Amino acid sequence: MANSKYEYVKTFEQPDNLLSRTWIVIRIDGRGFTKLCSRYGFEKPNDRRAIDLMNSAAQCVMKDIPDLLLAYGVSDEFSFLFHKDCTLFQRRSNKLVSTIVSTFTGYYVHLWTNFFPDKPLIPPLPSFDGRAVLYPDVTSLRDYFSWRQADCHINNLYNTSFWSLIQKAGLDARAAEKRLSGTVSKDKHEILYAECDGMNYNREPDVFKKGSVLYRSFELESRHALLGSSETSAPETPTPQSKTVAEKDRKRRLKATVAIEHIDIIQEDFWNQRPWILSGKTGRLPDDNAKEKS
Amino acid sequence: MANSKYEYVKTFEQPDNLLSRTWIVIRIDGRGFTKLCSRYGFEKPNDRRAIDLMNSAAQCVMKDIPDLLLAYGVSDEFSFLFHKDCTLFQRRSNKLVSTIVSTFTGYYVHLWTNFFPDKPLIPPLPSFDGRAVLYPDVTSLRDYFSWRQADCHINNLYNTSFWSLIQKAGLDARAAEKRLSGTVSKDKHEILYAECDGMNYNREPDVFKKGSVLYRSFELESRHALLGSSETSAPETPTPQSKTVAEKDRKRRLKATVAIEHIDIIQEDFWNQRPWILSGKTGRLPDDNAKEKS
Amino acid sequence: MANSKYEYVKTFEQPDNLLSRTWIVIRIDGRGFTKLCSRYGFEKPNDRRAIDLMNSAAQCVMKDIPDLLLAYGVSDEFSFLFHKDCTLFQRRSNKLVSTIVSTFTGYYVHLWTNFFPDKPLIPPLPSFDGRAVLYPDVTSLRDYFSWRQADCHINNLYNTSFWSLIQKAGLDARAAEKRLSGTVSKDKHEILYAECDGMNYNREPDVFKKGSVLYRSFELESRHALLGSSETSAPETPTPQSKTVAEKDRKRRLKATVAIEHIDIIQEDFWNQRPWILSGKTGRLPDDNAKEKS
Amino acid sequence: MANSKYEYVKTFEQPDNLLSRTWIVIRIDGRGFTKLCSRYGFEKPNDRRAIDLMNSAAQCVMKDIPDLLLAYGVSDEFSFLFHKDCTLFQRRSNKLVSTIVSTFTGYYVHLWTNFFPDKPLIPPLPSFDGRAVLYPDVTSLRDYFSWRQADCHINNLYNTSFWSLIQKAGLDARAAEKRLSGTVSKDKHEILYAECDGMNYNREPDVFKKGSVLYRSFELESRHALLGSSETSAPETPTPQSKTVAEKDRKRRLKATVAIEHIDIIQEDFWNQRPWILSGKTGRLPDDNAKEKS
Repeated sequence: MANSKYEYVKTFEQPDNLLSRTWIVIRIDGRGFTKLCSRYGFEKPNDRRAIDLMNSAAQCVMKDIPDLLLAYGVSDEFSFLFHKDCTLFQRRSNKLVSTIVSTFTGYYVHLWTNFFPDKPLIPPLPSFDGRAVLYPDVTSLRDYFSWRQADCHINNLYNTSFWSLIQKAGLDARAAEKRLSGTVSKDKHEILYAECDGMNYNREPDVFKKGSVLYRSFELESRHALLGSSETSAPETPTPQSKTVAEKDRKRRLKATVAIEHIDIIQEDFWNQRPWILSGKTGRLPDDNAKEKS
Repeated sequence: MANSKYEYVKTFEQPDNLLSRTWIVIRIDGRGFTKLCSRYGFEKPNDRRAIDLMNSAAQCVMKDIPDLLLAYGVSDEFSFLFHKDCTLFQRRSNKLVSTIVSTFTGYYVHLWTNFFPDKPLIPPLPSFDGRAVLYPDVTSLRDYFSWRQADCHINNLYNTSFWSLIQKAGLDARAAEKRLSGTVSKDKHEILYAECDGMNYNREPDVFKKGSVLYRSFELESRHALLGSSETSAPETPTPQSKTVAEKDRKRRLKATVAIEHIDIIQEDFWNQRPWILSGKTGRLPDDNAKEKS
Repeated sequence: MANSKYEYVKTFEQPDNLLSRTWIVIRIDGRGFTKLCSRYGFEKPNDRRAIDLMNSAAQCVMKDIPDLLLAYGVSDEFSFLFHKDCTLFQRRSNKLVSTIVSTFTGYYVHLWTNFFPDKPLIPPLPSFDGRAVLYPDVTSLRDYFSWRQADCHINNLYNTSFWSLIQKAGLDARAAEKRLSGTVSKDKHEILYAECDGMNYNREPDVFKKGSVLYRSFELESRHALLGSSETSAPETPTPQSKTVAEKDRKRRLKATVAIEHIDIIQEDFWNQRPWILSGKTGRLPDDNAKEKS
Repeated sequence: MANSKYEYVKTFEQPDNLLSRTWIVIRIDGRGFTKLCSRYGFEKPNDRRAIDLMNSAAQCVMKDIPDLLLAYGVSDEFSFLFHKDCTLFQRRSNKLVSTIVSTFTGYYVHLWTNFFPDKPLIPPLPSFDGRAVLYPDVTSLRDYFSWRQADCHINNLYNTSFWSLIQKAGLDARAAEKRLSGTVSKDKHEILYAECDGMNYNREPDVFKKGSVLYRSFELESRHALLGSSETSAPETPTPQSKTVAEKDRKRRLKATVAIEHIDIIQEDFWNQRPWILSGKTGRLPDDNAKEKS
């Protein structure tokens, strides 16, 4: 049973390597999560356990794949960032997307009982789909993350208003929808205060208002802090790292803690204070510091 | 925080719809399974529990996604087939690949304890990557599946010989490799018989020799049986189904049992006896039959 | 000035090979031909010289590129067909499209004075754009050509009616447009007869009504004629030709006359009587025949 | 003959829009120009008339397509640059490539007799193929053009040495090739001086040593000169031009002279002194200036 006569079928596989020197965002989305929410009785408008599960799964993905620089999550979606110079899997689109989606799903299912101990998973299991999007410069890349965070805010303000009208003001879904129709942001703040037991939207938890930002935690070194982001200061000439440096770098990434924060990523501050994210270089680990001082 | 100023970033998403009227194969592969095998002590050359877990996960994928026609698995890989006229997710490549990979991974992790109750999963969890390959005609499509099954046979004969030389003939890995170097199929059969306690390769289990074939089980109706595969008999004109027919069809698929067999898919017989696989039409369910007779 | 430091820029070139075993249609379209028509005073609704120029250019393209099987032209567009097994330029899309477009344009400009001796070309020169479209089976491929020929008919009937109302019935453009608004095919036939000096659309020249079909002229051999097109009769197994056969084949193609006809390609007849077009095999040349007989 | 039943074939056309905000280079290459050179007796190592014809054709392409920023040509190839924000043809790859190739070929054939009045073109006519390559940042983009110019230098030094050894030192091709084998740049300079009648490579015409650079000629305004290239100074935020501004801009481009120069484009100077090329903005036209002063 010689295999050679069939091997020509391999020629039907088409290359899908993503353009070099371009930022890669992999966004994954829950499939049919509306149904999932109701099946497992997720709280409305936000279920903290469900969000913590999403964040834990994303944290594990970042731990397993050290090339990842950043992840931003909200609701049932998560966006993962690879550096423009990343060469993982020769930048093959399907390979990158499927690996992220697979790793995320595995942890989501595996960690489920930690967050919903009383609600065992039953088929069909939760699943996610994914896509790769390329951004050629830091401006469009940051605008992508701003878009997701602005979207988080807009949706959360709406959902908080909608469910508060139901849960606190006693409206039904149709009435709540009608009440909010045509309202702008300011109106919703007022509705919450005036009609929903004096709710103050600004006091809602940041995890709901801003979503979740995951990145590797390095110490801010003063030189970096002054220089700001790599895009404006570093020379663009591609200087491939030596293998030793690359390997040392990889180990540092694997060792770094993956922080989960609920903060603004639209403004400059987030990026300026963590210059290693966009530079793709590793910063100093807290205990490197310790060693050096001692 | 108006979102409109950021929305232009959506234009960076590029369409990846797969060519119409072309067979879609999604192949998934385990990532780093050599390490996984040794971590969880999989038996060599084949671990029946590991294969049964793969097959169960694939069966669940076929249950969850009724558009799938066929799946073929061997070792840590599985190939899933969509019909050339399938329009699921508008045939978007990343969406199809990621959905299959995610669903498969979810079940693999979820079902793990059923097959390895004494070996709890610890991070990094098993994960899979995937790719989509298009085949424009039935000849190349069947050659694809023949390629995978021939590959299964070749690898299994080698691995069985290699591990038997170690386990039964007492060779070490290097010696076993050297013993097999340059041998053809017939030689390996003889080595097994002469040097490994009279092993007869032909009596090895089909699940190892032929891999696993999954498909929906319908009753063979005589008309179909006579007509053979759709490619040669059915008119090629695209006749879109009415919505009612499509929905009825979908329900039949969801209801059908997904069979797992370990049989030859290189020869005509497999395909001729199950004409519904390539026709993409549903056959008669055993109990439809029953109802009708009564 | 070592070049090696810049060579990395080659890695930005992305492969664009078209899916194997799939029919390739390259369609080219005149750019801004409405302006061109008025600048050079093309006759309305059809300018025979302009069409003959298009056809001559296409004939030269077919002469220069022996892999081409067929070309169909109407107005300022032409569609060229490569066989599904064609491997020219490793099936690279941009290379195939640009070569056809370039060759066509060169001849169009070069031959212009033969057809418009009194109207020298002045910049901006006529130009064409092109695209590649894949068809995985003969049904969709033939439907593509049927689509273009049906389109030719519909447009020509409208244009003939519109310009006859102006030229023979004395209407202005607006009135002619209004007269035709909402009419079906039959109405237009009647308008031509009743309002435009008894014109009979069916007696209009076939070159306007059916467009132009170009193919290599081989003698119909009885065996072929009986067998019909390769799709239904020949085994699909890919049997690569020997180099000698391929070269002989290529020479025959180069030697064959490229016929220009204005006939129906929607019905079976055209294809059945010229089985070599879709089989991709060469037929017998008239003088092969002669040689053999002598 | 309703066309609607065939229209589904349009769905086989697949989108090929190039990634947004990325520099587009279209490179075209002569097909089979070695044969062409010998058929029309081009001079060796460089035929000035052939190069002037290439440059004239490229100049006409830039005149016809105002979106083009720059063109660089050497031998039988030309690279054309579109701005990263260019939206011509919705950035469809095949459309951009085929339009450039078609326009270039048309002029090449049309202008031929101006440069080779005594050598009428005979079929097969000269033709070109083309491809699109994307560069996400100015560094890689400039490295692309440096790569082409360094390549020009290396090839021209070799060819000049090779043909001088034949034409002046009386070697045959094989001997000349052997003489140059293993030599570096400096050696070739010495061979030219010592063995080929005291030739000084540095005194060879720049058009051969550096190739040809085409760009629209605007006056250097001091503000621009100080600011340098857009990449480092201009805000990256996408601020779409108003329609009026865009139209005025377009007119200025159409009006600007297209300069042809044979100068270094590897160093900063070229780009710093012509900031409008990469900024994609139009500069001041010489007569705008005149008007203003008057």
